[in-house]
Amino acid sequence: MKSSSVKELLSMAPKLQEVTVNGWVRTFRSNRFIALNDGSTINNIQCVVDFENFSEDVLKQINTGSALKITGTLVESQGKGQNVEIQVTDIFVHGNADPELYPIQPKKHSLEFLREKAHLRIRTNTFSAVMRVRSALAFAIHQYFRQNDFHYFHAPIITGSDAEGAGEMFKVSTLDSKNPPLTDDGEVNYKEDFFGKETNLTVSGQLEAETYAMALGKVYTFGPTFRAENSNTSRHLAEFWMIEPEMAFYDLDANMDLAEDFIKNVINYVLEHCQDDLQFLEKRLLDEEKSKPQAERSDMALIEKLKFICENNFRRVSYTEAIEILRNSKPNKKKKFQFTIDEWGADLQSEHERYLVEKHFKCPVILFDYPANIKAFYMRLNEDGKTVRAMDILFPGIGEIVGGSQREERLDVLLDKIKALGIDEKELWWYLDLRKFGSAVHSGFGLGFERLVLFATGMGNIRDVIPFPRTPQNAEF
Amino acid sequence: MKSSSVKELLSMAPKLQEVTVNGWVRTFRSNRFIALNDGSTINNIQCVVDFENFSEDVLKQINTGSALKITGTLVESQGKGQNVEIQVTDIFVHGNADPELYPIQPKKHSLEFLREKAHLRIRTNTFSAVMRVRSALAFAIHQYFRQNDFHYFHAPIITGSDAEGAGEMFKVSTLDSKNPPLTDDGEVNYKEDFFGKETNLTVSGQLEAETYAMALGKVYTFGPTFRAENSNTSRHLAEFWMIEPEMAFYDLDANMDLAEDFIKNVINYVLEHCQDDLQFLEKRLLDEEKSKPQAERSDMALIEKLKFICENNFRRVSYTEAIEILRNSKPNKKKKFQFTIDEWGADLQSEHERYLVEKHFKCPVILFDYPANIKAFYMRLNEDGKTVRAMDILFPGIGEIVGGSQREERLDVLLDKIKALGIDEKELWWYLDLRKFGSAVHSGFGLGFERLVLFATGMGNIRDVIPFPRTPQNAEF
Repeated sequence: MKSSSVKELLSMAPKLQEVTVNGWVRTFRSNRFIALNDGSTINNIQCVVDFENFSEDVLKQINTGSALKITGTLVESQGKGQNVEIQVTDIFVHGNADPELYPIQPKKHSLEFLREKAHLRIRTNTFSAVMRVRSALAFAIHQYFRQNDFHYFHAPIITGSDAEGAGEMFKVSTLDSKNPPLTDDGEVNYKEDFFGKETNLTVSGQLEAETYAMALGKVYTFGPTFRAENSNTSRHLAEFWMIEPEMAFYDLDANMDLAEDFIKNVINYVLEHCQDDLQFLEKRLLDEEKSKPQAERSDMALIEKLKFICENNFRRVSYTEAIEILRNSKPNKKKKFQFTIDEWGADLQSEHERYLVEKHFKCPVILFDYPANIKAFYMRLNEDGKTVRAMDILFPGIGEIVGGSQREERLDVLLDKIKALGIDEKELWWYLDLRKFGSAVHSGFGLGFERLVLFATGMGNIRDVIPFPRTPQNAEF
Repeated sequence: MKSSSVKELLSMAPKLQEVTVNGWVRTFRSNRFIALNDGSTINNIQCVVDFENFSEDVLKQINTGSALKITGTLVESQGKGQNVEIQVTDIFVHGNADPELYPIQPKKHSLEFLREKAHLRIRTNTFSAVMRVRSALAFAIHQYFRQNDFHYFHAPIITGSDAEGAGEMFKVSTLDSKNPPLTDDGEVNYKEDFFGKETNLTVSGQLEAETYAMALGKVYTFGPTFRAENSNTSRHLAEFWMIEPEMAFYDLDANMDLAEDFIKNVINYVLEHCQDDLQFLEKRLLDEEKSKPQAERSDMALIEKLKFICENNFRRVSYTEAIEILRNSKPNKKKKFQFTIDEWGADLQSEHERYLVEKHFKCPVILFDYPANIKAFYMRLNEDGKTVRAMDILFPGIGEIVGGSQREERLDVLLDKIKALGIDEKELWWYLDLRKFGSAVHSGFGLGFERLVLFATGMGNIRDVIPFPRTPQNAEF
């Protein structure tokens, strides 16, 4: 007979119908109550076993982690916490899990311990909840852009251009690592490499996305990007997924409007579609924070925080205004910041961003019009000649979640910029072409997907919101 | 005033309303008719200019490729081919395009020429149609899986395991390429590399997806995969996107059912949502094939072919049956195949697959139960001890579009296999864990996204269905 998922069973009316379900044992209590989970939901279905009807050989294989196929009658549950349960008539053991060897036992495991078992940690409530939310967020992103007439654009992963300068890059090669072919000058001869040139993993698909925006109008990327930076923090990964929309005929204001609407929309999607998982994650966070001093605990519970984002306008503040606020702030005057803000032009550190968001405005903040010399070359120069049309969205607890800008559409201004920075014009011939032929106002932004998942799940370490994290000294699995 | 997209304007009723639209000039005829396109649709909006109302300076900047903002009155069109047009009252030139320099002129360009201009080719009708269909297909894939309770899983791109053996790999490293650090034995010391070990770009996310299927039940990947193979064909890319669903508790039959339903569903989506683009691509293909001999032309027009896929069952044929058919086929007896089929156990070549699909069955074919020794180690051994529960879906004109299998869930059988193949057990410790703890029947398949786009668009070369193709000696942009 056709089997049902746990999610389907839990939403059925119990009419003594015969049902079959496959799943893994979460717990087996009193030789009688199996809590079975199949990943379709965080909730388990209770399967009630009359042990006299089953052989000792079957019963002893029912351990945490065993895979079972259970057939029985769907009845109203006598116990608390569920509406229905299965009175078991048949059990098939797909595969057992020796309690002496199976590491995921029904007890508290530290997140650090589970990171070493990244292939099994998804069998815990916490990680299955996180990854279902992650999946829902990814879908919400695609759906939002589709509904708003964006075209999904796959930026290249291997790239021969390193002009963006967003960070350190990983080299990609098929040359013999020990004895690479050399040129007459004694340099590595990349002409003999697979692509006939030096290639790297992309740090951003933006420049390529611009080529598509200048023809399709509105496009977005959603793909992996890479940073070969030796950052061992709870906010950085060497491999992460990024979303980069790029829109022709959008100025910075339209860009900010889109980014805010986009974030609210996708968070709202998980509020609507992931209630059970969010409730679990909210409780998990509360439990975790119990051991922390009051000052380090979250101001809001998880779901309240997500609703707050959806229901409140992001505060838009110019860099210049932000500097004034910071300069006159208590921690600045009392030298509590590690980096004191003395004058206009200073780059903002994480401590400053957090002060603005968490202490001063107490809501998401969009900072815009940054000094040109602390931002990337492709950002549009303002008429003042010293600021660029950049914007960063800062979130409580996360810091920068979005970075974007209006792009410099004027060929002469862009050429001056790249010359001043010593970038080789020839490297960017195709990017410059966009300013030679049918150039126009355009804008875009990048959102680090894992930062969004961190925020939406209330997890504290970015390694815990991606299936198999890649960080310095770690590429297991 | 708020601007509208061309797609929106073309669906409006003309009521003499004032409208604004941004876009690029496709053609400018008789100093009067601008065909404007903004990428929202393959169709242009006709903008009628009374040249006496505009300065010579503006008029001379209206060339193919120029970016304009046009304001005017939306009226019923007098001309053929469109219902509405704009009587222009104002023109703002965002950026012009010197006809002497701009390579995308309104004339026929070869696909080879356009490949050299991959940053501009998206401005042609053909590539914009292809890439809109590509985007729609990608969304259809996410939507199909979401609606069927699959969880989207991001497989790692950089991998420390090379056990799958699906093909040659690209190395990923931050070591000094010219003078890599060496061990005492004179080998490259990967302990000093970024990840502390040798790492490569993934060839498949399947093994990792299995870890998630064995907890979340039904998952799928949709991400980039890589082959460092020196294949310069119209069917191969070094970097391509792959979709890999993986399902716990699915046997091979359920796997085939899913794959067939999935393909029909996503093709149906583009039939419903990409009519204009498909009509254009159908006509393009007909034009292209006019210069070919009758025997090389497609049997069906593009849209008819897509409907045929949706409306007909895929024919399921065992490998053994297929070998019988091939052995007794005319081309085999007349030695017309490059590789004659003599006996059971032979690997099928593209020529054989095409014969089965295009000549014998004249419909998509699912071949299953292949000889174990021509398939991967993880495929489930049948009771006959010589075949495995593998399946390939073969499409007319494309060949293999899906390859999948039921996976070997029995630890002892799997261990025997990997020992016989000389694979290091330690490399696969985590994969083997899945067979130690709660193992169960499970299955999955892989679908090369670009092959699907090729099929759906009727294009002939895989380089023309991905924005920036990566092939041997080619990683431009």
